Amino acid sequence: MVTLCKPAVAVPEYVITMEETLDLARARHADHPQLPLALRLIGNTGVTRRHIVQPIEETLKHPGFEERNALYEAEAKARVPGVVKEALANARLTPADIDMIVYVSCTGFMMPSLTAWLINTMGFPSHTRQVPIAQLGCAGGGAAVNRAHDFCTAYPDANVLIVACEFCSLCYQPTDLAVGTLLSNGLFGDAVASAVVRGRGGAGIRLERNNSYLVPGTEDWIAYSVRATGFHFLLDKRVPGTMEPLAPALRELAGEHGWDAGDLDFYIIHAGGPRILDDLSRYLEVPPEDFRFSRATLTEYGNIASAVVLDAVRRLFDEGGLAEGARGILAGFGPGITAEMCLGRWTNGDSAAEPRLDARRIVGYSPRHAAPARTVA
Amino acid sequence: MVTLCKPAVAVPEYVITMEETLDLARARHADHPQLPLALRLIGNTGVTRRHIVQPIEETLKHPGFEERNALYEAEAKARVPGVVKEALANARLTPADIDMIVYVSCTGFMMPSLTAWLINTMGFPSHTRQVPIAQLGCAGGGAAVNRAHDFCTAYPDANVLIVACEFCSLCYQPTDLAVGTLLSNGLFGDAVASAVVRGRGGAGIRLERNNSYLVPGTEDWIAYSVRATGFHFLLDKRVPGTMEPLAPALRELAGEHGWDAGDLDFYIIHAGGPRILDDLSRYLEVPPEDFRFSRATLTEYGNIASAVVLDAVRRLFDEGGLAEGARGILAGFGPGITAEMCLGRWTNGDSAAEPRLDARRIVGYSPRHAAPARTVA
Repeated sequence: MVTLCKPAVAVPEYVITMEETLDLARARHADHPQLPLALRLIGNTGVTRRHIVQPIEETLKHPGFEERNALYEAEAKARVPGVVKEALANARLTPADIDMIVYVSCTGFMMPSLTAWLINTMGFPSHTRQVPIAQLGCAGGGAAVNRAHDFCTAYPDANVLIVACEFCSLCYQPTDLAVGTLLSNGLFGDAVASAVVRGRGGAGIRLERNNSYLVPGTEDWIAYSVRATGFHFLLDKRVPGTMEPLAPALRELAGEHGWDAGDLDFYIIHAGGPRILDDLSRYLEVPPEDFRFSRATLTEYGNIASAVVLDAVRRLFDEGGLAEGARGILAGFGPGITAEMCLGRWTNGDSAAEPRLDARRIVGYSPRHAAPARTVA
Repeated sequence: MVTLCKPAVAVPEYVITMEETLDLARARHADHPQLPLALRLIGNTGVTRRHIVQPIEETLKHPGFEERNALYEAEAKARVPGVVKEALANARLTPADIDMIVYVSCTGFMMPSLTAWLINTMGFPSHTRQVPIAQLGCAGGGAAVNRAHDFCTAYPDANVLIVACEFCSLCYQPTDLAVGTLLSNGLFGDAVASAVVRGRGGAGIRLERNNSYLVPGTEDWIAYSVRATGFHFLLDKRVPGTMEPLAPALRELAGEHGWDAGDLDFYIIHAGGPRILDDLSRYLEVPPEDFRFSRATLTEYGNIASAVVLDAVRRLFDEGGLAEGARGILAGFGPGITAEMCLGRWTNGDSAAEPRLDARRIVGYSPRHAAPARTVA
């Protein structure tokens, strides 16, 4: 009974609207032969506004990889603790209850990962496992949920904290002029998100089955070129068409669980762009309205990378949730091209499980310091 | 009955000896006020030779982060498949049997991770989970074993492939002149390693319990500064003293399992440097000879980062292994400062388990495509 509890999401205070984005593209790329195409693609995203960690004037400068990465670290330290506290409160847990932190972020690089700083400054146990993942990009949110699910399956008393920290604006590369880059410049936004996966108890999505799928031969469709100027995002024009191979993977996963991917009660889908949602709606034969959580994320925040699926889940909660046992799917897509998918049922909470956790605390027994035990072979 | 099978390890063909390292330090840093200290520290490492992916003349140049990272990718693609094939053969498995790849590497950065390329080119199932971890540095080897252990605990029919790819020579920074850097320049070596953790069957170390430990307040003791010139390794002079807080963590883990960390049959310890091994021998009150596997890795290859623990396990196998049920500990240490530790027993293989795997193949049932199932709540 592993449960993804209500995520907390925060977006930065600086906002750029679609109109401002289009004006900027016109002003900066007036001579670009494919400007009309870029403007049309940006317009088609449906992203009405995005939030970024700095004013747009600062965002458009490139102060060098070192300064940008230092900014990533400073912004992460300023913005992540708030969502972590809220996610813990949503799950009715404290830092002392956490056994693992899965930290997904592809827009900055720190070693040690922010996980060490979080443990040191927020009171997580020194035994908290750290799973920092940078290289799954937008699929990181789904991967984090799935690895948390796996860990709690192994150790049913465990709780896992997920953190997604994406400052896509810090990967803006002014010298990159491919149409895919111009589109990306108008698509991605910044956000931080966090959620707890509880091994027992909690309300939200009870995770039942997960899987991963790599679309063969698409390694270079979404990629970073790593250079002195930092990470350069490469987006192949074939990417928007990836729901053709991925829809069957979602169908397969649902089928293995005895479910029909076209007949579920909720859909939490990575909103990489509008065509992903449109195509998946068509391939799975579900009404576009079923993707309203992902669509709202895309419209209001842009593509916030690994944080999309957590924000979409947050919106499902904010809508009031669902009836007990409602069935759904969560899927993140990213470089590889990789899909990280899971199936779950909505639960309004298992009141029987809650007192157990409290009792455990009262009697002073904490499984946090005892490593999850394996029966001796 | 999760078992870490025999690792495969390969080191590159270019060799630099201790004497050559000292000569280079003398020639390049003749005016450095702390040259005598640096020479003494390098001499004390006991690293007699190291293997590197390019001739030393090339290694000493810095062609820029982009070119270096491209070299990382090319060398990884050239060198990793060999150890992966050998590790699979050691575990008597094929790519089709693998459910997850944990790829640890802190000396280059690719998105997508090399995992996608491995899956595409070596015939791993499209459903193979990818867990690329860059930010745990030298602790990555222990972390990979522990996350593999967790996954197989959740899904006992699963098998996990571990890959450690470390080309430390590609992080050489000629302009960094701190004593810690000069020491690092004489300490780290290149290697690739791979091993399979089998959920059932297999011979090697039967994993029984794992845990992680972050030494409070030591985030900046081992760190990367991320710059236009790439990753700059920062090593604080307090790092060699970290066995004082880490030895109790090893004792605690063993104690929780009813074992005495000072009275085990084998020790696989990250050989970060000679003092780690000397101190741990003292703190745990075990003879230095018990750390012979790690010591041999350090002497013959240098500190090969996340690959150290896999190479030390390989040496335990090469020595002929141990009696059935012999008890031991494996511990990786890295930035954070993080320890990733596990306990296990030597097994010469469970012959009863092997036919089951074969039978499964014969009847055409493959759990690879069926996601690990959770009982419906």
